[in-house]
Amino acid sequence: MLTLYDNHLSGNGYKVRLLLSQLEIPFTVIWLDILNGETRTPAFLKLNPNGRIPTLADGDFILPESNAILCYLAENTPYLPAGQQEKARVLQWLFFEQYSHEPNVATVRHWLAHLGRRPDDPQILERQKAGNAALDLMEDHLGSRPYFVGDRYSIADIALYAYTHVAHEGGYRLENRPAIRAWLARVADQPRHIAMVGDCGSPISGSR
Amino acid sequence: MLTLYDNHLSGNGYKVRLLLSQLEIPFTVIWLDILNGETRTPAFLKLNPNGRIPTLADGDFILPESNAILCYLAENTPYLPAGQQEKARVLQWLFFEQYSHEPNVATVRHWLAHLGRRPDDPQILERQKAGNAALDLMEDHLGSRPYFVGDRYSIADIALYAYTHVAHEGGYRLENRPAIRAWLARVADQPRHIAMVGDCGSPISGSR
Repeated sequence: MLTLYDNHLSGNGYKVRLLLSQLEIPFTVIWLDILNGETRTPAFLKLNPNGRIPTLADGDFILPESNAILCYLAENTPYLPAGQQEKARVLQWLFFEQYSHEPNVATVRHWLAHLGRRPDDPQILERQKAGNAALDLMEDHLGSRPYFVGDRYSIADIALYAYTHVAHEGGYRLENRPAIRAWLARVADQPRHIAMVGDCGSPISGSR
Repeated sequence: MLTLYDNHLSGNGYKVRLLLSQLEIPFTVIWLDILNGETRTPAFLKLNPNGRIPTLADGDFILPESNAILCYLAENTPYLPAGQQEKARVLQWLFFEQYSHEPNVATVRHWLAHLGRRPDDPQILERQKAGNAALDLMEDHLGSRPYFVGDRYSIADIALYAYTHVAHEGGYRLENRPAIRAWLARVADQPRHIAMVGDCGSPISGSR
């Protein structure tokens, strides 16, 4: 049985739970309270010295980094194309997500929605500028295709959906981005899609 | 023939040139001046809408994101392990590099060494704190193993070497990190290792 260390508010954790749901792989969730230091305890740092969720335990094999977990679980499934170029294209978007999207779209959401920082904070305005550039690039890309890679739903879509569909919580506007909105609807319409836990207010499973 | 769009000062570009050298794959370099806007021209944005180097052209297949390029080139070579868990472990460190290391270690180096920002700039001090945490985690990990994954040199080492070996240019100290220093020496001692272009002052090949 897989065990996922996760947090209710994390889009990075949600990515993994969404893929596990779609792969119909059973798992146990251990919810950790980030704001209360539960990812910085000696016991958790022994599992993941970087002190972050999500962290997956597959028996003795402990794997952090949400997008590495997606690749690990999706290998040899329809969610990660097998062809060399398509697989590289998926990785391109996974690295884009972690470098150009998450630090701006997700971090600003966290600062505004969870930590109560002021919207006119210069650091927030700077990150929003970069986040809007990432969203513009996604809008252009999706203007001519249904999904990020190879006209097929993949973990590239899962990774980018996680924080894009709650981007409004970080002060981002999607009204003028119709291609992203249509893509969000297509992703939400996939078989065995689940809502982000933070949205529905209750964990899908799990123990403490 | 592969074509690599690159910049002399970029560690992200250096990663790709180092792997290509070690794989003995011939390639052409097109050097672009980032500070002079050459990655923001209409022609380059048509190749890579994100306007960043490195970008690899393998015929008509255009691939940005340095770590996605490493995976693309290393697949089915000794530089990327084939086993599911070891491959996931390599990806874990590649995502760690782009999320926890590069934005702090590389960006501070760029601000200090190339843009002439002041070392006491609060934004620099904040990033150095995160960069030092990343270096501490690497030091702990390397304290008991020769390379990042599976006791063997891989693209995880290449990705992390690129900016770690010039971390001093960003105000980081390696004197108290003996495991990192021993690992840097092991990496530099690999067959067909090349120096970063910025270090030796001349491109290894290339045209404009």
